Amino acid sequence: MRGLVRAGILPTVTVAIVGGTGDEGFGLAVRLVVAGVPVTIGSRAQDRAEEAAGRARAAAGADAPVDGAENPRAVAGAELTFVTVPYAGQADIYRSLKDHWPEGAVVCDTTTPLATAVGGRPTQVLRPWHGSAAEQARALLPEGVRLVAGFHTVSAEPLTDLEEPLDADVLLCGDDPEAKAAVGELVERIPGARWVDCGPLSMARILEPLTAVLISVNRAYGLEGSGVRLTGRDAWGRPAR
Amino acid sequence: MRGLVRAGILPTVTVAIVGGTGDEGFGLAVRLVVAGVPVTIGSRAQDRAEEAAGRARAAAGADAPVDGAENPRAVAGAELTFVTVPYAGQADIYRSLKDHWPEGAVVCDTTTPLATAVGGRPTQVLRPWHGSAAEQARALLPEGVRLVAGFHTVSAEPLTDLEEPLDADVLLCGDDPEAKAAVGELVERIPGARWVDCGPLSMARILEPLTAVLISVNRAYGLEGSGVRLTGRDAWGRPAR
Repeated sequence: MRGLVRAGILPTVTVAIVGGTGDEGFGLAVRLVVAGVPVTIGSRAQDRAEEAAGRARAAAGADAPVDGAENPRAVAGAELTFVTVPYAGQADIYRSLKDHWPEGAVVCDTTTPLATAVGGRPTQVLRPWHGSAAEQARALLPEGVRLVAGFHTVSAEPLTDLEEPLDADVLLCGDDPEAKAAVGELVERIPGARWVDCGPLSMARILEPLTAVLISVNRAYGLEGSGVRLTGRDAWGRPAR
Repeated sequence: MRGLVRAGILPTVTVAIVGGTGDEGFGLAVRLVVAGVPVTIGSRAQDRAEEAAGRARAAAGADAPVDGAENPRAVAGAELTFVTVPYAGQADIYRSLKDHWPEGAVVCDTTTPLATAVGGRPTQVLRPWHGSAAEQARALLPEGVRLVAGFHTVSAEPLTDLEEPLDADVLLCGDDPEAKAAVGELVERIPGARWVDCGPLSMARILEPLTAVLISVNRAYGLEGSGVRLTGRDAWGRPAR
């Protein structure tokens, strides 16, 4: 299917967003559908998914290519799925979707193991057994599914504010360069956004906790959506080597 | 002494840089002396310290306010000391300086616990027992000395390139707001640099490993000095609240 996209026969990949009723997933959904990417918002409940799809159309335009579905159906129909759920529910979500991933699907996990998962502070993180929430997800995914982690430094508020370009770089990591580039192609459709290849999936151990730093910064400076840009290069995207 | 600086009677704080013969410390020394800040480059050996001071004068100008001294004497004469040493030697350095810190001194530790300390990769990190290299340093400092951690995302190359302003934010953390602001005042003297208060010293657990991410990014994109800017605000510095 992705070959057809590359050849320009299909306009784009089809995207699902598990957790798309939450702020981060919803913001991402809206940015993507505005860019013309067909998105299915996934939720545990069909009616909540449809309600969020309705809100996305209200924000992005009545003809925006977005619908809602229960998570298993959303995932089964998508070439690329974002998983944007709180850490407390992350493992259960992956277990429940185990039999629904299409072969070769790309998954982009945005989870940060904030200490809020166990009643702690959002400026602190847990250390998952596997090293990171993403590596825990990897352990729960079928082998043929390709995992990328990212978006930990992009908060919901600037995603949702369609009036402004996104003043943020999206830091991605993963063990499959093609999968990172596929997620990166979507990032590049969001005005202002750039993506940076930060290395293998284990880099999620360092990238995920950045959410806690930005929450700390937001609180200290009275902000809602601080983010990160990398310096040292004007253009990022897929590395040449 | 710092009261006199504030009152404009002394031009600035006096700064020591332990590890100032290494690339990062040397780059920082040069940027500070160019800005008129008196710096003593510290080393274990007097002759190496003096050699580095000579190199700093060669880069910054013959009348640049820089000299060299063995670490204990450098530290004893400074109100603010940067410690820029490899993680493998960090604890020993702090132990050796235990009796030499002036009361109320501010220390800014820039150590990242890269896995190179034990023969591992520079794109991987160790997890220090105390949580971070900075917290290990805290445990080895007298109570009256105030510790800040930062500069983990600022590499030596752009520091040393005096032709270009520094396109980088300096992420600081620490438990003493005055100490963070004192380090921040020095950061603000480096053209292009801004400083951001990222929270308590324990945030070093998240900030220190960023060095490994940037080394990974440098390798992937063929760069020498990628860095970080925060977005969401034009001016950072000391938070209003």
